[in-house]
Amino acid sequence: MKNVIVGQSGGPTSVINSSLLGVYKTALDRGADKVYGMVHGIKGLLDRDVVDLSIRLTNAVDMDLLKRTPSSFLGSCRYKLPDIKGNEETYDKIFAILNELEIYAFFYIGGNDSMDTIMRLTDYAKKIKSPIKFMGVPKTIDNDLAITDHTPGFGSAAKYIAATTKEIIRDGLVYDYPVVSVIEVMGRNAGWLTAATALAKGEDCEGVDLIYLPEVTFDPDKFISDVGKLLKEDRSVVIAVSEGVKIADGRYVCELADHVDYVDAFGHKQLAGTARYLAGKVAEKFGVKTRAIELSSLQRCASHIQARVDVTEAYNVGGAAVKAAFEGLSGQVITLKRVSDDPYMCVTEPADVHLIANIEKKVPLEWISEDGTNVKPQLVHYIFPLIQAEIAPLWVEGLPRHIRLHAKSTIKK
Amino acid sequence: MKNVIVGQSGGPTSVINSSLLGVYKTALDRGADKVYGMVHGIKGLLDRDVVDLSIRLTNAVDMDLLKRTPSSFLGSCRYKLPDIKGNEETYDKIFAILNELEIYAFFYIGGNDSMDTIMRLTDYAKKIKSPIKFMGVPKTIDNDLAITDHTPGFGSAAKYIAATTKEIIRDGLVYDYPVVSVIEVMGRNAGWLTAATALAKGEDCEGVDLIYLPEVTFDPDKFISDVGKLLKEDRSVVIAVSEGVKIADGRYVCELADHVDYVDAFGHKQLAGTARYLAGKVAEKFGVKTRAIELSSLQRCASHIQARVDVTEAYNVGGAAVKAAFEGLSGQVITLKRVSDDPYMCVTEPADVHLIANIEKKVPLEWISEDGTNVKPQLVHYIFPLIQAEIAPLWVEGLPRHIRLHAKSTIKK
Repeated sequence: MKNVIVGQSGGPTSVINSSLLGVYKTALDRGADKVYGMVHGIKGLLDRDVVDLSIRLTNAVDMDLLKRTPSSFLGSCRYKLPDIKGNEETYDKIFAILNELEIYAFFYIGGNDSMDTIMRLTDYAKKIKSPIKFMGVPKTIDNDLAITDHTPGFGSAAKYIAATTKEIIRDGLVYDYPVVSVIEVMGRNAGWLTAATALAKGEDCEGVDLIYLPEVTFDPDKFISDVGKLLKEDRSVVIAVSEGVKIADGRYVCELADHVDYVDAFGHKQLAGTARYLAGKVAEKFGVKTRAIELSSLQRCASHIQARVDVTEAYNVGGAAVKAAFEGLSGQVITLKRVSDDPYMCVTEPADVHLIANIEKKVPLEWISEDGTNVKPQLVHYIFPLIQAEIAPLWVEGLPRHIRLHAKSTIKK
Repeated sequence: MKNVIVGQSGGPTSVINSSLLGVYKTALDRGADKVYGMVHGIKGLLDRDVVDLSIRLTNAVDMDLLKRTPSSFLGSCRYKLPDIKGNEETYDKIFAILNELEIYAFFYIGGNDSMDTIMRLTDYAKKIKSPIKFMGVPKTIDNDLAITDHTPGFGSAAKYIAATTKEIIRDGLVYDYPVVSVIEVMGRNAGWLTAATALAKGEDCEGVDLIYLPEVTFDPDKFISDVGKLLKEDRSVVIAVSEGVKIADGRYVCELADHVDYVDAFGHKQLAGTARYLAGKVAEKFGVKTRAIELSSLQRCASHIQARVDVTEAYNVGGAAVKAAFEGLSGQVITLKRVSDDPYMCVTEPADVHLIANIEKKVPLEWISEDGTNVKPQLVHYIFPLIQAEIAPLWVEGLPRHIRLHAKSTIKK
């Protein structure tokens, strides 16, 4: 009996279900009896909310839809496992459920916080000498995981952001008077996604004029002066700004405005309003028309624009996690290693979860222009291969078709 | 010598350039010598800023790119012609330029305000007995033009909105705790675009829970109670709201929040912040996590999701305008007449511009549910055929390729 279980955690991406499919199909191909899914991640597992994936994924169409369905098919959670010390009860409960299900290997698809879950479970398994394998499957649009060249989910989000930025630029430059458009992009501490706006520039597009990443301290006065210089040329201006930009005293720019803050279970502040605040400042100072455009959750769930490179890699890290576990590895995260830039090639490689969990990879400062208002060509070259190629939605009656987890086959007693 | 001139005006759409192509190709096919483009509409014409379109549109690839390029290729303006009486000078100037260019027919692609331009020019032509033909080519994502079954631009925007709503719903329902997502959709006085969110509902999607159109007075207390009822089921809620919803005293909901208003040249207030305001109220009242998602300018320039029906019709109204003008008609707008629902078929039909200019077509109240929180099936059936079929972007290096108006061949002296 070789059963496996897989869960999804953290914020959705548009290819997170491709990784789920990679785990599912590879596990079956390699002889797993059952592939269980945790409904709402580890939190669902603790509630014994588990499904047999074969009940819902019955044919090739289901699987092709799964690849194209955004957000976590199994549901997600933002539950962080407590310290092992003093909370052995929680861990014992998890392992009891896993043993009951005769689980051989446990896969968790997620970002930084989810890799923390894998690390703790690995550590506890070692402590109690459980043979269960624990493997992390990386996923995050933020691209902020250590060691891996990039994370699945980033390429598609970057492709969506660059494509949308091109459209916003066309829209913003349409009038014969200056309009200042400020695009707000996700990325609390890492500017990878905001940097993707730089890819809009090309033969057919003027590109964005200013790009502000959270890696560089944001200077509101310099910002106004940067915009003022461009407006002197009597033209429209398009600006990309990370939601996470901070001023010198450590406050987020969006905190300068008055709005409701929300803090999630991991202690992360919900950020929003940066573009609105900056657009307001520009309007106030220069009396020009401004637009604040938040890409909001659209950028992480826009599976109608997926990069085929990303979909394939997302699948591959899922598959490679199963392969590694079935070969006896545990406590590993499957990373992507870029072996060639031209032609672009990436291979998967397991890495110790302790080297990845809770570490944030930011944009290297040497990839950001000296004055902090743009990115350097190296960064564009790094992102470029990750947004390549397309996978068309399955259009049904005019809309992209998805698949939902209907049937629940829980082990609740 | 049979020259024609074409301009684009008002807010962009993702298919406005398909209409431009329809005018351009049909005019050439029917023997026009030159097809001039006004750069930034009538305002550009007054500045003698005119291009010969054949200089930029040289081959079939250019034309295929034009169809897929969002926003007005020729640039736009929001310039409203003054009353004829007392401003004959402006009109004389326009006709002098048109005569100098030996213009046979004048085409203007736009919405309500642009049809006003066609109406005034028609009236003045009649007054001075000019033989120049003036034709309106309808365009607006808002779908608020009278007489025509619908407007080119609406179908693609509706398709984008419905597709994006599906993705937001998948994203919003991912967690195991309630999240209230409020999607803000364009539409100052007419709820057509907001109604398009209803198309998200289907076999694979729960659909939005509440839809608020500007045709119905918005009751903030009832809104809170509507949301409260849904939250009692302990689940996530997705709400679509028009930017133009107003409370009983006539104020826009977004005016209840504090933000900078902007009034455009036509006296229209810039609306934004409705979703943010309502999400804030929900968070305050119920202490749940909320998200405010403004589809902002994305919904009008997202040419990476075009409805093929819409692209074709946009082309056809442009072509039909040329045909009508070359047959001697003037002062007409090309409307779409639905001759069959199943199978869906529309034909073009010229209509007197005086019956269209400055009139707003709203959603009929009988297509809105009695309690004002949803739309009726008739409205979904009306929109459904308009979002059908796809036209794929021309993907180049991972991004949809567009075409820009580079070369300027002005007649400035």
